Amino acid sequence: MNKNSSNTMALAPNTSNKRETVCIFGTGDFGRALGHKMIQSGYRVVYGSRSTQISNLIPKDAEVLSHAEAAQKAAIIIIAIQRQHYNFLTPLAEILHGKVLVDISNNLKLNQYPESNAEYLAQLLPGSRVVKGFNTVSAWALQSGALDASRQVFVCGDDVEAKQMVMNIVRALGLTPLDKGSLLAAQEIENYPLQLFPMWKFPMFLSLGLTVFFFFYCLALDVIYTYIYEHRNFSFFIAITIPNRVCPVMALVLLALVYLPGIFAAIIQLYKGTKYRRFPNWLDKWMLCRKQLGLIALAFASLHAVFTLVTPLRAFVSWRTGKGIISQALNNKTEPLNNTNAWISDSYLALGILGYFFFVLVGITSLPSVSNNVNWREFRFVQSKLGYLALVLCTAHTLVYGGKWFLSPTAYKWYLPNIYILSLIVPCAVLVVKFVLIFPCVDRPLTKIRQGWERNPKHSE
Amino acid sequence: MNKNSSNTMALAPNTSNKRETVCIFGTGDFGRALGHKMIQSGYRVVYGSRSTQISNLIPKDAEVLSHAEAAQKAAIIIIAIQRQHYNFLTPLAEILHGKVLVDISNNLKLNQYPESNAEYLAQLLPGSRVVKGFNTVSAWALQSGALDASRQVFVCGDDVEAKQMVMNIVRALGLTPLDKGSLLAAQEIENYPLQLFPMWKFPMFLSLGLTVFFFFYCLALDVIYTYIYEHRNFSFFIAITIPNRVCPVMALVLLALVYLPGIFAAIIQLYKGTKYRRFPNWLDKWMLCRKQLGLIALAFASLHAVFTLVTPLRAFVSWRTGKGIISQALNNKTEPLNNTNAWISDSYLALGILGYFFFVLVGITSLPSVSNNVNWREFRFVQSKLGYLALVLCTAHTLVYGGKWFLSPTAYKWYLPNIYILSLIVPCAVLVVKFVLIFPCVDRPLTKIRQGWERNPKHSE
Amino acid sequence: MNKNSSNTMALAPNTSNKRETVCIFGTGDFGRALGHKMIQSGYRVVYGSRSTQISNLIPKDAEVLSHAEAAQKAAIIIIAIQRQHYNFLTPLAEILHGKVLVDISNNLKLNQYPESNAEYLAQLLPGSRVVKGFNTVSAWALQSGALDASRQVFVCGDDVEAKQMVMNIVRALGLTPLDKGSLLAAQEIENYPLQLFPMWKFPMFLSLGLTVFFFFYCLALDVIYTYIYEHRNFSFFIAITIPNRVCPVMALVLLALVYLPGIFAAIIQLYKGTKYRRFPNWLDKWMLCRKQLGLIALAFASLHAVFTLVTPLRAFVSWRTGKGIISQALNNKTEPLNNTNAWISDSYLALGILGYFFFVLVGITSLPSVSNNVNWREFRFVQSKLGYLALVLCTAHTLVYGGKWFLSPTAYKWYLPNIYILSLIVPCAVLVVKFVLIFPCVDRPLTKIRQGWERNPKHSE
Repeated sequence: MNKNSSNTMALAPNTSNKRETVCIFGTGDFGRALGHKMIQSGYRVVYGSRSTQISNLIPKDAEVLSHAEAAQKAAIIIIAIQRQHYNFLTPLAEILHGKVLVDISNNLKLNQYPESNAEYLAQLLPGSRVVKGFNTVSAWALQSGALDASRQVFVCGDDVEAKQMVMNIVRALGLTPLDKGSLLAAQEIENYPLQLFPMWKFPMFLSLGLTVFFFFYCLALDVIYTYIYEHRNFSFFIAITIPNRVCPVMALVLLALVYLPGIFAAIIQLYKGTKYRRFPNWLDKWMLCRKQLGLIALAFASLHAVFTLVTPLRAFVSWRTGKGIISQALNNKTEPLNNTNAWISDSYLALGILGYFFFVLVGITSLPSVSNNVNWREFRFVQSKLGYLALVLCTAHTLVYGGKWFLSPTAYKWYLPNIYILSLIVPCAVLVVKFVLIFPCVDRPLTKIRQGWERNPKHSE
Repeated sequence: MNKNSSNTMALAPNTSNKRETVCIFGTGDFGRALGHKMIQSGYRVVYGSRSTQISNLIPKDAEVLSHAEAAQKAAIIIIAIQRQHYNFLTPLAEILHGKVLVDISNNLKLNQYPESNAEYLAQLLPGSRVVKGFNTVSAWALQSGALDASRQVFVCGDDVEAKQMVMNIVRALGLTPLDKGSLLAAQEIENYPLQLFPMWKFPMFLSLGLTVFFFFYCLALDVIYTYIYEHRNFSFFIAITIPNRVCPVMALVLLALVYLPGIFAAIIQLYKGTKYRRFPNWLDKWMLCRKQLGLIALAFASLHAVFTLVTPLRAFVSWRTGKGIISQALNNKTEPLNNTNAWISDSYLALGILGYFFFVLVGITSLPSVSNNVNWREFRFVQSKLGYLALVLCTAHTLVYGGKWFLSPTAYKWYLPNIYILSLIVPCAVLVVKFVLIFPCVDRPLTKIRQGWERNPKHSE
Repeated sequence: MNKNSSNTMALAPNTSNKRETVCIFGTGDFGRALGHKMIQSGYRVVYGSRSTQISNLIPKDAEVLSHAEAAQKAAIIIIAIQRQHYNFLTPLAEILHGKVLVDISNNLKLNQYPESNAEYLAQLLPGSRVVKGFNTVSAWALQSGALDASRQVFVCGDDVEAKQMVMNIVRALGLTPLDKGSLLAAQEIENYPLQLFPMWKFPMFLSLGLTVFFFFYCLALDVIYTYIYEHRNFSFFIAITIPNRVCPVMALVLLALVYLPGIFAAIIQLYKGTKYRRFPNWLDKWMLCRKQLGLIALAFASLHAVFTLVTPLRAFVSWRTGKGIISQALNNKTEPLNNTNAWISDSYLALGILGYFFFVLVGITSLPSVSNNVNWREFRFVQSKLGYLALVLCTAHTLVYGGKWFLSPTAYKWYLPNIYILSLIVPCAVLVVKFVLIFPCVDRPLTKIRQGWERNPKHSE
């Protein structure tokens, strides 16, 4: 097997032609990993440490000196120590004057301190040029070279030149720097690695809540009602039947919720006669999580597809099918093909398949690498046109599927409507309003407003 | 909820250490959005405007001056006005002399003007250094920070230094500049955001045409023929049965069309004895859209897979199955297992599954982020070896499926062959010729030619 | 159709404002392709060639001179000739002194020569500044502009400034340079385009071996045993039944093997009381190919899903179903619904669907573009938490499915356990040990060790 795998391409170069010297304060995990990587990339590395005895964990080609000595050897000093020890740097203020200090620290909690660590460092050492960076990279990723996780390194700082120097190091290590502006952004950068899908929180909670609601709604109508009034135990419906009722409902409702804020925005713009008024805050937030809502809807739709496809494998279904056939056989008669039934069954399946197909297409263009390769017009075409097409097809799928039960009184157990009737409310509303909005008499002023025209052009709020 | 989402990381820095000043001519939508973003990234922004009264839509930290005053304050001037108003810049020619002018304009139609807007600007102001850029980014994307669409900013210009200055701004805004060369590329850059999947046009029209043809072919044979001669109404076949006949045929034909141009190229190279002759134009174009053809084929194959998997759920199919079982039961006999039938049914299903599996693998490596992480040899291995494997398996799948009907006379309604016989022509031809091409006596000269050997080494065309 | 497709955006600029001059030694395929691309990007190109007669294959705007003349015109010289001809450069040593030489050569085999071509070149011409680069790009990709394969250009060299110059050219051509450090990395860079999925080799061989073993195990028990002892020919099981037994077993075992090394690592860390000891070599290698193991497991799981879903379409299955129904009909009795059976059948299907769903989610985050957009914490959450959830669900799926046969004596043909019992060994072991490891009394010291605490803090190995 090839010993030098592609992940460990950069080898330690013992050549004379080195890059500049970088100083690292602190010989902890991350300091050592960063030092290793820098030496591999051709930098000369000097550690500043309290004890200058050389541990065998420190890279061999690195020097270990006292903090003051080490700092004097380099223009860039990486502060790989924890925030609570920053104050020991104050005596070194003179030596550190004018140097570029790279704050790589992370906190344990979101907004742990009133100001970011980098700003705190800048306050402690006002003569130094503080740059925030590297905190989003893990020591393990640096060491193993297995940078499967992000290669992006967010950088911010008030001194443009210092920031540029740090970004050059980032690039030399094979990572991608992303300039985030002034040191005020440090708080955000320090919070970033502590986040757990912040954009997904609201969509996840919303869909969790709706799922629980619809699950118990179905449980009541399909299992408990049958048990009480018909004395039949269909408790095993919990495993597949009910999930396969909840999933399509969730998919349809969430997909409609993706397009609902656009409808609201259009109405607000038409009503106010301008596009320069800010939308209410909730609408702004809603519009920013449309992608997440759509992807969760796609997940539900996929589950619905698989749950549906396993139907013939279920013991209950083969029992029911067998029973039907046997009763026909015993009665010595064969039912003729019901053409209407064949039409309904085939067309709702076909509508569902096509709707899901376009939905998946829209989902694929949400992949960052795909959306990076299309222009704005193409992105909008897929997300808006194909997305609406998917919504129309999926709504039609539900309508055709449920059509026959719509007005049948047996569908209203406990005077509650069947779940798919509930699921149709939002998508039908969206489609009806959208249909009105594309009428020329409504569309024309809306297009004019979106191109900048104002009904009442005074910019007063 | 965290108010500062990851999308709004860059905050307005009111610090003393700012980047250089940038001037923006025009206070329209895009000018304002760009100004906002620049101020967030630490630039000082000066607007040049006809009316210097400050609208509350203009970023607070920006100055608004007359065009002449504003231009004098900056080395870079972003021209955020429409092409038809460019001539008002001529009086300012002296002030703009030597300045970097960034043309960010877009047109409404492809090739709307004889020359690009940027070249027109350069002609109007010959003393200025014109750079084209930013036209591929939307104002909305800049404002919301939701850069889900492309982060790429195409830049071109005749002055290398000016271009470099603009590219630095692009990077500072968190976008990725792509140098497209001299100002001659401006036309292309201006056309780019107006394009709607230009590489997909030919493959889409081709597959649309073929789909319509095959659909009506099937409709005639399966629905109309049965209705006329057997007086049976199978109109519901339109929903699933016929699509599920057209989809596999389309998938197989398009997949074969992906590999056909490579066959043609090999034959042309063998015939001409050199690889240095240009291929005919149609072949070049065909080779460039192979990826798109393949992905459309994959879409058809996926539809075919889902249409097939829903088969047991169709009312028609359960009626037919029930009828068969009941007639056996009424005749009081059980048919024994037909081993040959079991073999045929299982093997065509298995071949189809494996063929689709490899097809999907090839499709996944077409994702930009995956193909960026494989080397050329690996990419070729997947696209060529695995692709051919998928073609062989899918062709075998069709052959095994249709084998029994091939020579049966009832298959030829109206003397027309069944659709799957048509579908086999191209893939079988491709596979046979490919099989000949990998024979050593043919493969050896071809390999030599592809490594640069020429039978007749005079470079005369 | 638009003649200037997006791929050929950069047009030849005949403008006065050109970039610097670049010299290319050698007029072979790659030299010409690179020259073409450079001229398109605004460089002046001079070819150095033995015969200075201008072939019509050489770009029109390029000059062709003798090697010595050409070299004098440029600071950067691209050596587009093969390694065996490098020695002809030695007479030019004086002219090439101080110039940047770009070695773009590739070898035909891995580690063909003792030293890399670039190092060999540097030894031949010690006064020149050698940079390795461009070898990962194909001539065809440069010419056609169809850079579907990688845009990454690995660059290495001992001279930082020279490397920077080459990286600027790379960027100007629309490619992405990746600095790999000193010239010692040249061997790796030269080996890179010759590699064929090196990280996949071990996982592929492992799964191939296991697949073959399980296939013959099933063949013996399901086909040969039945044939010998029951005289029934089930040879068609080879097509679907046996693959659909092997695939889930492989998926489960490989998924467990993804999490097994993490278990070993935790035990080793607990035992040694420190995280600073290196893991044994086999464990390191195993941990680095977990992603590949997981993706192969996902492929097997997907095949299992499709093989399962086509079950109702198989001739054998419809025959078996029909036989069962007919025998009931002929006996004039209808079996009642077996509630336990319905529960078991529905719950193992539901568990399998959910397990597969989470498995696919984990797989999607392995896509490079997705993993680039999540932070370290999010990546770990998906890969570890959701991955374990998938493992738990899939193990439960197998347990529920096989539960009833576990203790039945007929399951032990030839005293061999059924295959799914074998498949449960590794996953159950992993889950049991993992369950122990998350107990607070074990988890607390482990967490402390992983944060850097050492039981015996002497750094002696």
